[in-house]
Amino acid sequence: MKVRVYYEDTDAGGIVYHTNFIKFCERARSEIFFSRNMMPHEKYKSGFVVRKIDADFFAVSRLGDLLEVFTTIKERRNTSLILRQEIYRENTILFGMDIVLVYIEEGKPKRFPNDYIKVFEETQKKSQE
Amino acid sequence: MKVRVYYEDTDAGGIVYHTNFIKFCERARSEIFFSRNMMPHEKYKSGFVVRKIDADFFAVSRLGDLLEVFTTIKERRNTSLILRQEIYRENTILFGMDIVLVYIEEGKPKRFPNDYIKVFEETQKKSQE
Amino acid sequence: MKVRVYYEDTDAGGIVYHTNFIKFCERARSEIFFSRNMMPHEKYKSGFVVRKIDADFFAVSRLGDLLEVFTTIKERRNTSLILRQEIYRENTILFGMDIVLVYIEEGKPKRFPNDYIKVFEETQKKSQE
Amino acid sequence: MKVRVYYEDTDAGGIVYHTNFIKFCERARSEIFFSRNMMPHEKYKSGFVVRKIDADFFAVSRLGDLLEVFTTIKERRNTSLILRQEIYRENTILFGMDIVLVYIEEGKPKRFPNDYIKVFEETQKKSQE
Repeated sequence: MKVRVYYEDTDAGGIVYHTNFIKFCERARSEIFFSRNMMPHEKYKSGFVVRKIDADFFAVSRLGDLLEVFTTIKERRNTSLILRQEIYRENTILFGMDIVLVYIEEGKPKRFPNDYIKVFEETQKKSQE
Repeated sequence: MKVRVYYEDTDAGGIVYHTNFIKFCERARSEIFFSRNMMPHEKYKSGFVVRKIDADFFAVSRLGDLLEVFTTIKERRNTSLILRQEIYRENTILFGMDIVLVYIEEGKPKRFPNDYIKVFEETQKKSQE
Repeated sequence: MKVRVYYEDTDAGGIVYHTNFIKFCERARSEIFFSRNMMPHEKYKSGFVVRKIDADFFAVSRLGDLLEVFTTIKERRNTSLILRQEIYRENTILFGMDIVLVYIEEGKPKRFPNDYIKVFEETQKKSQE
Repeated sequence: MKVRVYYEDTDAGGIVYHTNFIKFCERARSEIFFSRNMMPHEKYKSGFVVRKIDADFFAVSRLGDLLEVFTTIKERRNTSLILRQEIYRENTILFGMDIVLVYIEEGKPKRFPNDYIKVFEETQKKSQE
């Protein structure tokens, strides 16, 4: 998934405001579902809740940059999923994070539905080709 | 209502990103209610919908500025309300807008409840003192 | 230019936060230049400053919507340009605004460079085809 | 430092969008300096760069909540500083993170100026009283 850096993403330091890298990752996760016309929270009154983020900021990004976000499954547990998401500008890595997502149905953690896992796996395969 | 300009509010041009002035005005409208422990959408499954904004950008604002937002009632109609909101840094006006709000209850425009009008009038009086 | 509605664009009312329509329009203006590798503020230490916005909010947008932003030149003056920008979801118009941009070089309003006008005109033609 | 949750901070899930907790923490760090009329990047052409964030999301926050951000020094190294920042709603912790900041002067990591360390220490003392 490509992300363009617009004025709104930058700050007075002339670079992308740090938390916006984390927003770009969320866009990439959502796009995986939206581009398939899947809306988790409509089907099961459910959704993914972010429990933990471990993020490294390797390099800065500037106005007009065209970035790419890669998402892979790092670990699969019962009610949670650890994804690895990385942001590149061409061949340079700018940002990487491990994110722990918990799957919630009607307020309670539930086992991740298999169709959601499959969707992440498909995306992973495509980006490795 | 005072608003501090943080990094997230600025852009690579070194100034407050233009639409953020409009966000500051929305914060000021909400604060009027939140500071009184009023939550319009909980009481009546209702809320204010923005219908129209006419905005003038007079001067720029920079990182660290302490701004002040003033809100006055410009015109009161049956199901809508026109507010005038202005943003100052000390005695300099930076931004001004007329905003048309429509009051919605369960999806339909309704007459503005009198207690909401009163709340706006009280705020106006206080800021004129 | 297409814009996907992500979580960050919505608010607790379940719809796109009103000022985000205005941000989507700015993305569309910037994309016109970035997609041609043009960076106004680098070439001439210059940029566009927003002077005035007259906006109408016709309908709401929700999570996952795929929107399209159209930009046309409404009026060309000496140091300013009035654009008309509209946001559609398929054939439904959600938002429209007239925006007055002033062109600034080293802090002072200057005549709009012809190559910038041409870029807007090219975009307009393409979107009308 | 108190932070009110406005519409712009929430998303269609009805809760504060996850990365906004991280933005609230940045506001708190900046406020420490701005409230003393200190502007790091003006004095030394310098600034703090975020290198690493380890964040835990303990509980959600909703529209209108009044939150409080606490900032303490966790570890002081030569050119970097590890802060602990936590967000509470009354006595409930919602969010906590360790953040590694690097101090940059004219593009290069430098020793953290002592007056900046002192400012963080003063804030810490005040919040413990």
